[in-house]
Amino acid sequence: MFESKERKLKKIMKDGKAVLLAFDHAIEHGPSIYEGIDISPERIARIAFDGNVDGIILHIGAARRIKKLIGKIPIIIKLTARTSLTSDENQIQQIVTSVKEAKEIGATAIACTIYFGSERESEMLKMFKEIKQETNRFKMPIFGFAYPRGKKLKSKYDADAIRYAARAGAEIGFDVVKTYYTGDKESFSKVVKDCFVPVLVAGGPKISEEKDILKVVEDVMNAGASGVAIGRNVWMRNDEEAVNLLKEIGRIVHK
Amino acid sequence: MFESKERKLKKIMKDGKAVLLAFDHAIEHGPSIYEGIDISPERIARIAFDGNVDGIILHIGAARRIKKLIGKIPIIIKLTARTSLTSDENQIQQIVTSVKEAKEIGATAIACTIYFGSERESEMLKMFKEIKQETNRFKMPIFGFAYPRGKKLKSKYDADAIRYAARAGAEIGFDVVKTYYTGDKESFSKVVKDCFVPVLVAGGPKISEEKDILKVVEDVMNAGASGVAIGRNVWMRNDEEAVNLLKEIGRIVHK
Amino acid sequence: MFESKERKLKKIMKDGKAVLLAFDHAIEHGPSIYEGIDISPERIARIAFDGNVDGIILHIGAARRIKKLIGKIPIIIKLTARTSLTSDENQIQQIVTSVKEAKEIGATAIACTIYFGSERESEMLKMFKEIKQETNRFKMPIFGFAYPRGKKLKSKYDADAIRYAARAGAEIGFDVVKTYYTGDKESFSKVVKDCFVPVLVAGGPKISEEKDILKVVEDVMNAGASGVAIGRNVWMRNDEEAVNLLKEIGRIVHK
Amino acid sequence: MFESKERKLKKIMKDGKAVLLAFDHAIEHGPSIYEGIDISPERIARIAFDGNVDGIILHIGAARRIKKLIGKIPIIIKLTARTSLTSDENQIQQIVTSVKEAKEIGATAIACTIYFGSERESEMLKMFKEIKQETNRFKMPIFGFAYPRGKKLKSKYDADAIRYAARAGAEIGFDVVKTYYTGDKESFSKVVKDCFVPVLVAGGPKISEEKDILKVVEDVMNAGASGVAIGRNVWMRNDEEAVNLLKEIGRIVHK
Amino acid sequence: MFESKERKLKKIMKDGKAVLLAFDHAIEHGPSIYEGIDISPERIARIAFDGNVDGIILHIGAARRIKKLIGKIPIIIKLTARTSLTSDENQIQQIVTSVKEAKEIGATAIACTIYFGSERESEMLKMFKEIKQETNRFKMPIFGFAYPRGKKLKSKYDADAIRYAARAGAEIGFDVVKTYYTGDKESFSKVVKDCFVPVLVAGGPKISEEKDILKVVEDVMNAGASGVAIGRNVWMRNDEEAVNLLKEIGRIVHK
Repeated sequence: MFESKERKLKKIMKDGKAVLLAFDHAIEHGPSIYEGIDISPERIARIAFDGNVDGIILHIGAARRIKKLIGKIPIIIKLTARTSLTSDENQIQQIVTSVKEAKEIGATAIACTIYFGSERESEMLKMFKEIKQETNRFKMPIFGFAYPRGKKLKSKYDADAIRYAARAGAEIGFDVVKTYYTGDKESFSKVVKDCFVPVLVAGGPKISEEKDILKVVEDVMNAGASGVAIGRNVWMRNDEEAVNLLKEIGRIVHK
Repeated sequence: MFESKERKLKKIMKDGKAVLLAFDHAIEHGPSIYEGIDISPERIARIAFDGNVDGIILHIGAARRIKKLIGKIPIIIKLTARTSLTSDENQIQQIVTSVKEAKEIGATAIACTIYFGSERESEMLKMFKEIKQETNRFKMPIFGFAYPRGKKLKSKYDADAIRYAARAGAEIGFDVVKTYYTGDKESFSKVVKDCFVPVLVAGGPKISEEKDILKVVEDVMNAGASGVAIGRNVWMRNDEEAVNLLKEIGRIVHK
Repeated sequence: MFESKERKLKKIMKDGKAVLLAFDHAIEHGPSIYEGIDISPERIARIAFDGNVDGIILHIGAARRIKKLIGKIPIIIKLTARTSLTSDENQIQQIVTSVKEAKEIGATAIACTIYFGSERESEMLKMFKEIKQETNRFKMPIFGFAYPRGKKLKSKYDADAIRYAARAGAEIGFDVVKTYYTGDKESFSKVVKDCFVPVLVAGGPKISEEKDILKVVEDVMNAGASGVAIGRNVWMRNDEEAVNLLKEIGRIVHK
Repeated sequence: MFESKERKLKKIMKDGKAVLLAFDHAIEHGPSIYEGIDISPERIARIAFDGNVDGIILHIGAARRIKKLIGKIPIIIKLTARTSLTSDENQIQQIVTSVKEAKEIGATAIACTIYFGSERESEMLKMFKEIKQETNRFKMPIFGFAYPRGKKLKSKYDADAIRYAARAGAEIGFDVVKTYYTGDKESFSKVVKDCFVPVLVAGGPKISEEKDILKVVEDVMNAGASGVAIGRNVWMRNDEEAVNLLKEIGRIVHK
Repeated sequence: MFESKERKLKKIMKDGKAVLLAFDHAIEHGPSIYEGIDISPERIARIAFDGNVDGIILHIGAARRIKKLIGKIPIIIKLTARTSLTSDENQIQQIVTSVKEAKEIGATAIACTIYFGSERESEMLKMFKEIKQETNRFKMPIFGFAYPRGKKLKSKYDADAIRYAARAGAEIGFDVVKTYYTGDKESFSKVVKDCFVPVLVAGGPKISEEKDILKVVEDVMNAGASGVAIGRNVWMRNDEEAVNLLKEIGRIVHK
């Protein structure tokens, strides 16, 4: 009845690798910190398209604004959300969009976040079960954002915790894991080695120099990553730089 | 099976703009603070009709009282509620009316509130998913009230937080966003610019002078707003003044 | 398929007015405080029948005991419950009986309580949505008990809070509102004026003198009420007095 | 489609009276406190059978062990559970077995506990609604354990609280109420008088002397009870004594 | 429609005994503590296969990696999860995989954990009811991990608490109970005696010497256990040692 999950995944990761443009920042961090930058879905999608990315991760509302692109470029609908207006201790993302909605708009896959280690972890695991039941029905691949949280973490980029979260995501059924970069190749290669599904690296905080970004991409690919899901570090640049950067990243990832 | 969402939205926002009469105050604030004012649904609806508004926002109970008007004027049923009898920290609205009920009474659209940043934000996001599933089924446009809350806000009219909430609403699937006026044209134009769906401005606290209200309407329209959803500032005046004010507002909004 | 809600309501409020016998006290307050009084459903129902009341409000268990009366006298099944064994801060009633159960036993309407202003208000609003969906299906009128609660109340009989709760009940879809008497005609007339559905007055705490009760009934009717839902002030008297009192009340209410 | 509830109830309470063997202690109190006693379902069932009880109350797992007895002796499946490993303040039982499961194993009735007055009372009321909907479908009688809890209780055997809980259970739809013995005939006769469904008395804490047990049974029957649901006070004795005791109790109850 | 539960159970426990390889550690404890060990599902499955185990317990994600083994060796899918990144007080496992998913991948049985005594015990009991309803539909045996928790425990290996948890698991419907070893044969024989379904012993913390492990296996089998579910104590060794150890254990268990 529906195209297989494997086939859909192949549309995004043709050679098993992918450069994705992440664009859920406006809800996760708010628009004000991107002052002076055009964060319209239309602009971001154009950059993504011109930069030859393998997919765009965005929320349903933003996806509706770029409908004509859907079909030309794979769309990954983010199902869960949280604003950072809420207090920092309140670490939970909830389903705000159903897989059915994602399917109907023409998405190729869905994305969701789980904060492993959060006090509200169990609520998110339960929520993930619901997502999985719906993805099974519609045969949609799951790009899971496996982010560690909780009082036990040494820092947000605690390498052991990232490695744990990535593996936990794979265990419960993420088809592709997106997680933070641990900061060095050695520790990240352990994250990849212990995660038996493809690992994409989140772009992380702002990095000014293009060459520094490319160095990170090179490092994570050498560490065994299957690509990157990059956002602000691309679209905070001007259009031309952004497109070129994406192409450069693509050359490294798909090398 | 059902008339399309776009078509329904067009009934309210014919030229992409709208003046809506908001009438959910009796449940949000209680009747006592409107002492001496006739806050019957019948009166409010008559003012709305005579004032040529593009729609009325009200709860299902009130809507039943003005059944004969339905069909002549678009009705937007508010699905979520909260009284201010509950403590101020308890920032959550819950679904109290289903989309099906709204549909059956002849509503053209539905409305709901999300307090982005509230400690109970995740409950409201989950609730919104339920609303969206039902609106998708019945093809009902969503007028989302995107109101910022939480300990991080500088004030209720914190411009960055309003901008954030409006964008968050657009991202998760509000078809039209209603939010607070930030207080000045410059900051509000940023709210509108970063919100990729039409923005309506809430009437806000009482303003005595008609000319001050019209000034605000003029300012928000210049800032890019798609109209206003005004309530007490209209129906706290006498009938004639109220109708005239609505007409004046309509002239500015639909100019 | 089902008889219309309006028609059912008409069976209880033939002239738009009603005297109801309330009999949910045994679960709300427990039997011990009625020491020495026969609080069997059979006795209460007989008093109600002989006293010509327009309906009896009771729980499903009690209703099963008076099955032969059902059909002769309208039954209003209370769907929500709470005991006062639980701590006073724990202000929530939950659904304990479905509308379907009420329908099957032959009820003409259902009743439910919402404590507007309680910290758990949102749970009750959500619960009410479920009740409403089921009443819509079975076309059952809702007698909503709109009781104010919360830290903001000056007292349990805070006139502004009662006025607020009554209106809130009407807004969300109560077909008939039952609430407390504010204590004086003037403030209660405001409750009625701002509540656009019929208002019934709860009998309230024990009043010794029959004439004092009749005075209250007279006052609330003059204030615009549509009747009373009286309980302990009736059945704490002996059978003859109770029946006579109900008839007296009926004469005032249906005058 | 299903045999009527009344008919099923008659299988257990042929003369309107019943001696039930209660056997949910292993989950409520744990096996260690019954050191040296064979608490296998097989032994308990054999004692019950030989002692001519009218029914056995047990959990689904234990019921599966005595399948060959089902059909010969009515089985009442306990649907709710709680261990006493959890802290004493955490007073809630949750549904752990569905009515459908009970039906499929051949149960004649179901049992469930509600702690009236617990801080989590509302959760249990909601849970009870679910149970009732399922029992209505399968026409299964409900043996409700009405146990008072909460800070307002003078003691676990607070006579007023027991009376309250028993009545509350009857009001919400228990077909038969099981509750604690208040300790004296006079106060217990009030429990029975105000509870309009049959009342069974829980066996309570260990009583050493057989004659003391028989005295209690005699007293509660004189107080109007419809029988007893006895457990440890039976099966903590040796088989012969246990069987004889049950027969003695049966003679008193069915006298 | 589906093969019977008994038949499926027989595939795992042919002689009523079983050696299972447990492999849910990566989500329960994280990968970092197994530094230097290949914890890929492929390796673990190969060891299990070569070691002639009667089944493997693992999560759905890991199961997908060893699809070609499914059919050759019974797979038991773990449905519930919790990471130890979350705080130690937060003792709850939630359903993260449905029985349907387990069925579709070809599992022979399912596994789930309940922390009896945890403050969140009631949530897990409710969750277990959902699991049971689905296992009844698909006729899947339940391997329940009955682990005691809570403030009342003397230690994690409190013999009375283990005995309680094991029995509680049997009562609510576990088909096979897996629990901790109490540390000595005498106390463990009481756990087995009071648990009327087969008891498997969890491998527990790391034991260095092979002979010490075999001693424990011998002891628990003598105490009446039906086998072991062993994990890290097997696969933390090199492949050859691991396979040999499993075979040795098999000889003792199936003796």
